[in-house]
Amino acid sequence: MAKEIERKFLVADDGWKAGVGTTSKFLQAYIATGEDRSIRVRIIDGERARLTIKLGRDLLVRDEFEYDIPVADAEELMQAAIGIVLEKSRHRVDYRGFTFEVDEFAGFYHGLIVAEVEMRSTEDRPDLPAWLGREVTGDKRYSNMAMATNEDLSAELGHGLSNPPL
Amino acid sequence: MAKEIERKFLVADDGWKAGVGTTSKFLQAYIATGEDRSIRVRIIDGERARLTIKLGRDLLVRDEFEYDIPVADAEELMQAAIGIVLEKSRHRVDYRGFTFEVDEFAGFYHGLIVAEVEMRSTEDRPDLPAWLGREVTGDKRYSNMAMATNEDLSAELGHGLSNPPL
Repeated sequence: MAKEIERKFLVADDGWKAGVGTTSKFLQAYIATGEDRSIRVRIIDGERARLTIKLGRDLLVRDEFEYDIPVADAEELMQAAIGIVLEKSRHRVDYRGFTFEVDEFAGFYHGLIVAEVEMRSTEDRPDLPAWLGREVTGDKRYSNMAMATNEDLSAELGHGLSNPPL
Repeated sequence: MAKEIERKFLVADDGWKAGVGTTSKFLQAYIATGEDRSIRVRIIDGERARLTIKLGRDLLVRDEFEYDIPVADAEELMQAAIGIVLEKSRHRVDYRGFTFEVDEFAGFYHGLIVAEVEMRSTEDRPDLPAWLGREVTGDKRYSNMAMATNEDLSAELGHGLSNPPL
């Protein structure tokens, strides 16, 4: 079990593109959700898959349990997804000792770009690159779980946005 | 992914005790449930643990995905159980080519004994030993998920029954 401590931001401009280290393609879906928990399936670059359980109401710090599973299992589990399967490219951008993960959505949320930085403790104060926009840590509308499973939200954010919402 | 095909029975008398092969002690809890799915954590004999996802509305045949996880993870996940943690001894009794699993509950459901037989196909017709009572396949009251998470049911079946309900 790991603690997940992260902050989340919208992205103001394309400045991040110059700093991309690695990129992975994610398919991501939820097979169970609750107010204080989610069970997520991810297929990474079409060749690896993981099952992740997140527990806890705190959007900044949560318990996270993660297990490798066969890709074939993940594909079957995605057939039983609650809501939609999210598609995104995750770009890793190192900036002053921290790695920012820039999630560029495709498919239903095409046009939406969100950046997360994972911290080692809640006391960490990462320097923020200039291309970050408004912080949305704790804004449930930008949780991937809500984006996948919440129909109202999909109507608000989805269907090919050309710019991230402000 | 495996298909789970099983029938479930109450137990009429102690005849099964003579045929017990192996016995395991289970702690079992649910971390997410839905009409057509459950995510279960089990600790077996205090030394192994498994995460199991079951999908499908059909109580006779369901898709089952099962993964070994660390016991420490299972213990943490059980802290977040929905409802109660079930305690039972699972006795395996071979009978004419099929294995009957006799679940003898302890703790909250002390006194309740239920037997299941797992089949390879829905066409299998296992011979039924004389110690089996009424068949309860498909009776949601005897699903472990309902027993763990349904408060009404706990009141009906739980608190130290001395005999299985008829």
